[in-house]
Amino acid sequence: MRNIKITISYDGARYNGWQKQGNTKNTIQEKLENLLSRMTGESLELHGSGRTDAGVHAYAQVANFHTKDSRPVEEMRKYMEQYLPEDIILTGICEVGERFHSRLHAKRKSYVYRIDNALYPDVFQRRYLLYEEKKLDLEKMRQAARYFLGEHDFAAFCSGKKGKKSTVRRIDAVDLEKNGNEIQITFTGNGFLYHMARIMTGTLIEAGRGERSPESVKEALESGDRQKAGFTAMPHGLYLKSVEYDAF
Amino acid sequence: MRNIKITISYDGARYNGWQKQGNTKNTIQEKLENLLSRMTGESLELHGSGRTDAGVHAYAQVANFHTKDSRPVEEMRKYMEQYLPEDIILTGICEVGERFHSRLHAKRKSYVYRIDNALYPDVFQRRYLLYEEKKLDLEKMRQAARYFLGEHDFAAFCSGKKGKKSTVRRIDAVDLEKNGNEIQITFTGNGFLYHMARIMTGTLIEAGRGERSPESVKEALESGDRQKAGFTAMPHGLYLKSVEYDAF
Repeated sequence: MRNIKITISYDGARYNGWQKQGNTKNTIQEKLENLLSRMTGESLELHGSGRTDAGVHAYAQVANFHTKDSRPVEEMRKYMEQYLPEDIILTGICEVGERFHSRLHAKRKSYVYRIDNALYPDVFQRRYLLYEEKKLDLEKMRQAARYFLGEHDFAAFCSGKKGKKSTVRRIDAVDLEKNGNEIQITFTGNGFLYHMARIMTGTLIEAGRGERSPESVKEALESGDRQKAGFTAMPHGLYLKSVEYDAF
Repeated sequence: MRNIKITISYDGARYNGWQKQGNTKNTIQEKLENLLSRMTGESLELHGSGRTDAGVHAYAQVANFHTKDSRPVEEMRKYMEQYLPEDIILTGICEVGERFHSRLHAKRKSYVYRIDNALYPDVFQRRYLLYEEKKLDLEKMRQAARYFLGEHDFAAFCSGKKGKKSTVRRIDAVDLEKNGNEIQITFTGNGFLYHMARIMTGTLIEAGRGERSPESVKEALESGDRQKAGFTAMPHGLYLKSVEYDAF
């Protein structure tokens, strides 16, 4: 069997997230699987590097599938480009070793959250940036962000925790940049819990507004209590930016 | 009567252009007039600086209306912000001299056309930039653009010419800038005919693709023949950028 790795960029606005599960219709995974199954004539499965929530975007989601189809990847690319909807773009396709698995072998991921902090919302960015009216104090946000660095139990920063699954994750970097009226927060870590990037963002926004102290992030982490963390920022400002692998 | 000048930014995607006329429903002018009439309790008329086509956007359209309403403009601003749809933003409101007319006193206008010239279309910009697959030769486009400068009969660069109305206009500047994968063409002139900015853009794109010589722009202008000019670029890449007035 050949193993094909694809990289896709998508506007998540009209999808119920990446992953098909149970009765969830209209997911990006399902859309792509249907297209690839039509292309190869096989009923195949597409493995994504991880889920993205409903409404969340991706600059570069990674996925892979196994197939007996013998056509060159360049032809697959042309086929896919022809049939993909306009809100999903194939940016890369290549053949990889048979054992590569886009989720199991992912070492790190980066998410970026985009905030429009202008005096008036930018009407052309309203679908892609969170508009925040109150002028955010970037320095306060940076101070708060430092508490995320390293390995922590992020139980307070996830939604719908169930069962005994570990909520320990490692965050390697939280970069805050301002460009014009746009603030970008980039989170890099070895994994992200359900809603984790959006709750970290909401918490940093509260710090930037002066509604909570930077130190309160430390308290929230230690408490493991969702109530101590900030609000869950809207999905439309969040992008899966990149997935890192070594070896492949 | 007071005379109120407003500046608005809008995403033109879901409107039939600025101007209400005959049976045209769902125009931006109509939307605003209805809101202002509700606000003042008067049946008022809103004068725009000019039309924008269906699907064309504005960073800063200017309009004015007369009213007997006595509330401060700051209160009008709050009222409008509360009721405007999310794709129309009020960016400025002020009281002006009674004789000011946003169309009659406009001295110059600038339009900007935005082109995505990347290897793959940017999925998050597809509604706001024209995607052009072929790598455009900016130098060729600049050479072609020079022929637009000055006063010319732009009959070849307008759609649906009727009657004896003058098609002479003056273009003061055509600036081409590249930023990353985005090309912006900014046209500044004393007035623009129906589809003129979009046909000038289509013509420059053809020059950038190498499908026509820069000199062919001169021939098209002199011929007055629409067939000699380029295609009409899609509306979703075009923005009314600014309207200049002196005296007011």
